Amino acid sequence: MTQIDLNADMGEGFGPWRMGDDAALLDIVTSANIACGFHAGDWDTMAATMRAAVANGVGIGAHPGFPDLQGFGRRAMKMPHDSVARLVQYQLGAAQAMARAAGGTVRHLKLHGALSNMAQADGELARHAYAAALEVQPDIVLMVLAATPMEEAARALGVPYAAEIFADRGYAEDGTLILRGQPGAMITDPEEAAARISQMIREGAIITAKGARIETRIDTVCLHGDEPSAVTAARTLRQRLENDGLTIARL
Amino acid sequence: MTQIDLNADMGEGFGPWRMGDDAALLDIVTSANIACGFHAGDWDTMAATMRAAVANGVGIGAHPGFPDLQGFGRRAMKMPHDSVARLVQYQLGAAQAMARAAGGTVRHLKLHGALSNMAQADGELARHAYAAALEVQPDIVLMVLAATPMEEAARALGVPYAAEIFADRGYAEDGTLILRGQPGAMITDPEEAAARISQMIREGAIITAKGARIETRIDTVCLHGDEPSAVTAARTLRQRLENDGLTIARL
Amino acid sequence: MTQIDLNADMGEGFGPWRMGDDAALLDIVTSANIACGFHAGDWDTMAATMRAAVANGVGIGAHPGFPDLQGFGRRAMKMPHDSVARLVQYQLGAAQAMARAAGGTVRHLKLHGALSNMAQADGELARHAYAAALEVQPDIVLMVLAATPMEEAARALGVPYAAEIFADRGYAEDGTLILRGQPGAMITDPEEAAARISQMIREGAIITAKGARIETRIDTVCLHGDEPSAVTAARTLRQRLENDGLTIARL
Amino acid sequence: MTQIDLNADMGEGFGPWRMGDDAALLDIVTSANIACGFHAGDWDTMAATMRAAVANGVGIGAHPGFPDLQGFGRRAMKMPHDSVARLVQYQLGAAQAMARAAGGTVRHLKLHGALSNMAQADGELARHAYAAALEVQPDIVLMVLAATPMEEAARALGVPYAAEIFADRGYAEDGTLILRGQPGAMITDPEEAAARISQMIREGAIITAKGARIETRIDTVCLHGDEPSAVTAARTLRQRLENDGLTIARL
Repeated sequence: MTQIDLNADMGEGFGPWRMGDDAALLDIVTSANIACGFHAGDWDTMAATMRAAVANGVGIGAHPGFPDLQGFGRRAMKMPHDSVARLVQYQLGAAQAMARAAGGTVRHLKLHGALSNMAQADGELARHAYAAALEVQPDIVLMVLAATPMEEAARALGVPYAAEIFADRGYAEDGTLILRGQPGAMITDPEEAAARISQMIREGAIITAKGARIETRIDTVCLHGDEPSAVTAARTLRQRLENDGLTIARL
Repeated sequence: MTQIDLNADMGEGFGPWRMGDDAALLDIVTSANIACGFHAGDWDTMAATMRAAVANGVGIGAHPGFPDLQGFGRRAMKMPHDSVARLVQYQLGAAQAMARAAGGTVRHLKLHGALSNMAQADGELARHAYAAALEVQPDIVLMVLAATPMEEAARALGVPYAAEIFADRGYAEDGTLILRGQPGAMITDPEEAAARISQMIREGAIITAKGARIETRIDTVCLHGDEPSAVTAARTLRQRLENDGLTIARL
Repeated sequence: MTQIDLNADMGEGFGPWRMGDDAALLDIVTSANIACGFHAGDWDTMAATMRAAVANGVGIGAHPGFPDLQGFGRRAMKMPHDSVARLVQYQLGAAQAMARAAGGTVRHLKLHGALSNMAQADGELARHAYAAALEVQPDIVLMVLAATPMEEAARALGVPYAAEIFADRGYAEDGTLILRGQPGAMITDPEEAAARISQMIREGAIITAKGARIETRIDTVCLHGDEPSAVTAARTLRQRLENDGLTIARL
Repeated sequence: MTQIDLNADMGEGFGPWRMGDDAALLDIVTSANIACGFHAGDWDTMAATMRAAVANGVGIGAHPGFPDLQGFGRRAMKMPHDSVARLVQYQLGAAQAMARAAGGTVRHLKLHGALSNMAQADGELARHAYAAALEVQPDIVLMVLAATPMEEAARALGVPYAAEIFADRGYAEDGTLILRGQPGAMITDPEEAAARISQMIREGAIITAKGARIETRIDTVCLHGDEPSAVTAARTLRQRLENDGLTIARL
């Protein structure tokens, strides 16, 4: 029986500001990618999110991003690979400490926003970021975009990883995500998104905007929490996957 | 034979800016208190400082401060104790990761600047900060100002700690540091400072501005690295302590 | 006929985060206190808020705060008066530019959060902040808490000012605001708050928690926008004041 | 007689950190490009630098950069043009206020670091930044890199501008600066740099690395202040220009 993890970005508030409905999502997902203070997620937000994840039995992931609160880590920043490596280590370390204080442990690492977009296209960047994380935590599971240079980087490192597809994002013909703002970037109908994801998992393949199949390992599905309709869409997806006989379980 | 540790704040640059002569100090001290990104010390600076400390056999300490780059963590900020606790955990975790990546390990924790000044006067604040650090790293050595509520807080927690005196700072009659900017806050003559410190260590007592003796445990001496004459003063002190038969060794 | 201004804090988002329902409040208030980037309100948020204020004929105010995004400027920070003065100038200048680009102009200045709380108690701090603002914009209207050292500081400077009371905050017997978190700090019933404010304006006096009257000039009422029920409360207040024959007009 | 302005970046400290020898440079240059808080230059640093510029009769320029302290504004950030426009306005407004408080006025605008590098190559970006500045201060002089899309953008706007060459930077064959880190990017011999600049000014042409002449208007020369030998090089250049009969005067 096929097993699948559901992950979502969480703890994306900062100071007085909140984003997304983490409490509701924690009932649906099995892994939480928790912002580490650079693009979102200060120490108090992290602590609260970590505790909630532990209480819900949801796996904790470090979700490092660029040092860019105002841009929410979604702006490309041209940084040397070595500096990106250390940036990831710093944020991972902070996440490990907050997880430990919350009675949990960091299980996976997922790059955020523009850092992820850049690593999706640049395997060397991905490799630097991942090798850096492994220096800090050798048993960490790398969450990579399926069928991209990120996955190749993880495979080349010979370490455990989880290949990810996105529940509400369209795929270009080369298997990369269609960038936000481009047509077809977002799949807004929850039923459509759910059916599509279920098919991808069962077939072991990404299905592109034009309907092509790119065979790939699929271990986890990313649900978005920062859109108003996120929770409904997430419930729809989970229900559909369960109806289709898939087992939802954390990494 | 009495053994003493010498510590100094390091890694206090940020981005393009440098502060202090870390390279020279690393030849003199046995423990380095490394800024963790909030008042100074970004990820690149931390990495370089950690590597240099490891290369010199100098013990690595996390040196968390308030989130206040512009004020260098020297401005009092009124934060709830719980938030201070998490602030310490976040910075300690980041330091642990950077130390591990540098081939080392965090051995001690020392509060920086206004956070230290406040904890020096407020044992409850000290206790929250220390308990938080211990949650993250149970074997960490707390570096506390000798004969203050900080030391009491560490002792009450029943954990290893190192009691510290300051090489170039004057002591008020209650055993606290005379605040920067007040008369007598800084002892600027290196020979005077060295003689005074040697006496304190050998007698096991703080000697106040008016000459009173406050008996106390003394495990480490803080040398300052951010004044132009710091390195000379540090060498003078180390030489004097060695001449007086003390063994300089890290915690 | 008595004329009164209604003001509210606005533009309190940052980057991807929003706070309060500015669009709705802009239909109700006559003056907007716009965050200037230090505790909230980045350049994009400021620009959008300024344009909306201009479009609604709402007076623009600069609302400088401490450099503390994570604490939303609500944490006391111990800064030298001269540095506070420059902090106000920097933020006021930024606000002037954004207002001009939006086709408007800064008309008033109001201190935010902990900076306001501290200036409420410390007339010297208020004087430094106000004199600094006047250096930059001699015709600016200072918005001061009625019957506090802030008002005395403005009066002593011999410049135009607007004395303010708070719609939803309780007053201690000395005429200062009861601090957030203390009992009686918030008046949560909109009708009660509206009736109380109408009475204060018509009587020209602050009415304290225990019912004492402190005669004072009252030019403006602060409505809060960061509580969920803010808009309803604001409408209730405005309706009540109009029903009671007061003229709502901007400074 | 040919007149030339000498400009240098100043006020590039932040909080406790200093950079460059502003005091010495203020005796040599006629225009100061003052950091506005985003890549360097907090409110206190700006105020001190502005006052020193006024005291020395040196023209004040706003020097906005990307919001990136750690990278000193030298990292490319991909931002929408409209957001860059507002970023420039915010920083310019802050600079205007600080200049006014210092008894001076902002006379020119110069983009910093990666923002300048990007605008050097992207005329649309330059146009957005410049038009934004002009909205805030219609009489501002735009300082542009000679013979680049920046100059074209300024010319197309039909406003006063000053065309700039760099004292210590090599020029590629297309007239752009050779990027830092590339061979030939820096001209390290002060005499060589001075002779080359004097020739360029007298001939009204940029001379490239390979010796080609690109005719261009030259109004100002940028001296760098952040290298250790900056002051000597600056004095050498000024002396050489005076010896060659040029008049040094601010814009």
